[in-house]
Amino acid sequence: MSRLPIGIADVRAAAARLDGSAVRTPSLRSEALDAIAGARLLIKAEPLQRSGSFKFRGACNAVMVKRPKAVVAFSSGNHAQGVALAARLAGIPATIVMPADAPRVKLDGTRALGAEVITYDRYREARERIGAEIAARTGAVLIRPYDDPDVMAGQGTVGLELAEAASAQALRLDAALVCCGGGGLVAGCATALTDAFPEIEIDAVEPAGFDDTARSLAAGSRLENVPGPATTCDALLANTPGELTFAVNRALLHGGLVVDDGEVFEAMRLAFRHLRLVIEPGGAVALAAALTRKRDWTGRTVGVVVSGGNVDPDLFADVLRGR
Amino acid sequence: MSRLPIGIADVRAAAARLDGSAVRTPSLRSEALDAIAGARLLIKAEPLQRSGSFKFRGACNAVMVKRPKAVVAFSSGNHAQGVALAARLAGIPATIVMPADAPRVKLDGTRALGAEVITYDRYREARERIGAEIAARTGAVLIRPYDDPDVMAGQGTVGLELAEAASAQALRLDAALVCCGGGGLVAGCATALTDAFPEIEIDAVEPAGFDDTARSLAAGSRLENVPGPATTCDALLANTPGELTFAVNRALLHGGLVVDDGEVFEAMRLAFRHLRLVIEPGGAVALAAALTRKRDWTGRTVGVVVSGGNVDPDLFADVLRGR
Repeated sequence: MSRLPIGIADVRAAAARLDGSAVRTPSLRSEALDAIAGARLLIKAEPLQRSGSFKFRGACNAVMVKRPKAVVAFSSGNHAQGVALAARLAGIPATIVMPADAPRVKLDGTRALGAEVITYDRYREARERIGAEIAARTGAVLIRPYDDPDVMAGQGTVGLELAEAASAQALRLDAALVCCGGGGLVAGCATALTDAFPEIEIDAVEPAGFDDTARSLAAGSRLENVPGPATTCDALLANTPGELTFAVNRALLHGGLVVDDGEVFEAMRLAFRHLRLVIEPGGAVALAAALTRKRDWTGRTVGVVVSGGNVDPDLFADVLRGR
Repeated sequence: MSRLPIGIADVRAAAARLDGSAVRTPSLRSEALDAIAGARLLIKAEPLQRSGSFKFRGACNAVMVKRPKAVVAFSSGNHAQGVALAARLAGIPATIVMPADAPRVKLDGTRALGAEVITYDRYREARERIGAEIAARTGAVLIRPYDDPDVMAGQGTVGLELAEAASAQALRLDAALVCCGGGGLVAGCATALTDAFPEIEIDAVEPAGFDDTARSLAAGSRLENVPGPATTCDALLANTPGELTFAVNRALLHGGLVVDDGEVFEAMRLAFRHLRLVIEPGGAVALAAALTRKRDWTGRTVGVVVSGGNVDPDLFADVLRGR
């Protein structure tokens, strides 16, 4: 087996770097949600992370490793805020390229963190090209949203903490569910979780129509999404698995699962009620997979990563009212 | 000075009893909320507690100390769920007397925890009498919502953990804000917080029209609310300070503060956005006081207790939409 882009030592090094900067978020339990899932769920609550999603972990680790004079990033919103906050803490300027139709809460949040925001039309322009052009022109270092070992290792600290929370309760994780856009979070988590629990079965979870990782895992090579479908999961719109993330995910994952918007909204409502946690649509896909029993996890202990909580209040109100 | 109903040893003993049963909830930070408050806020997130509020702590401690064969309680909802869960964990039956117009999420939640729920008309009937009658008839032990040293000591573990979280960040709490109905939570927290930080200034925070503790503290004796006003803070409707809680609060508190529904709703919206936390109206009064700067805490470090997150989705959606 060829060496993977990251290993457990990278995740542990990231955890040491992030100590005191990132929040050690709680792994929540709910008897009501366990009953619905038919399994014992440990729910990693990254909406409680700084900037409102796990993205701060990878961005902060990358900035700490690369020590740039300035950074640029392209993102639909959570990576944007993560990079903006990491840059602010490092005392360096950040330029963030965001789609003009990103959720308002994410555009405003990124600006509030002191970043310069440049919007683009995501149906007509390629954000990667815009980000690379700014990097070339200004000398800023591009912080990629997932296909960067430093970013992947930073996201992996989510899995490390989840494993530690399970062990602290004398539990062994039989399975884990992690939401997946470009695959950085699940790749990092899989690195940490398979180290702690070698028998664990980990699934990447994606929104319907954006299941490029699930299909790529089944095919054994990186496939693209078919253009056309829409999803409310704005955080998970990557068109194809990352090269580095897919190398890890192909080696370590059990498979990929898909949930639809209705299942995501129900998971958001159940989390509102039983966890008192605000979850954005893209952050709820793994929980949705658990609550709709996409596999038979009956009686097993399942780690579930809830990845973010940056959602516009009007959309959240619609979801609460059942639309 | 006469001996107070509880002391720090009681709170520490409760913490030891609750270890492994109650969640050690996080103390959240938000740069955005700090900017609004003009102070450094440590926000204790009890919506993440089992049963969705701090009430589980006191109920569980009381059940562990009293070792009853059965319990009865009267409550508008959070104490109800706390007692129901504590009884379930102890394997004993619970009967809960609740107002018929309690939030649906609280009525349903209490039943879902296996308790027998008896509803009454809170404008015509006295819940204390109904609860006492059931206790006398069935032999069940009455778990009072606040005027019980075991309950007060259990609630005090909120303050103990808040003090520990501050110390872990090398911070000293200059002030603390704690929501107040009958006064059990603030009495317990004040016991723990004044032990850790002798100079701390602690305020009880109440909704407008239900400021019996604020007025009683000013007067030096227990006063009742004037009948008439309404509030959305269903969790904070106690008519007068408890006898035991007031003895503690009169000795340890700096004073009492009052917030109105509009300030509470804005605090709920800001917590949704910046903490990704669901807070019920009664749980948000202390945060509302901090964010509206009811005193000058500029540059100081302030502990804020957010006490619960059991709120009907329709009400929460209304609040998000600004009504």
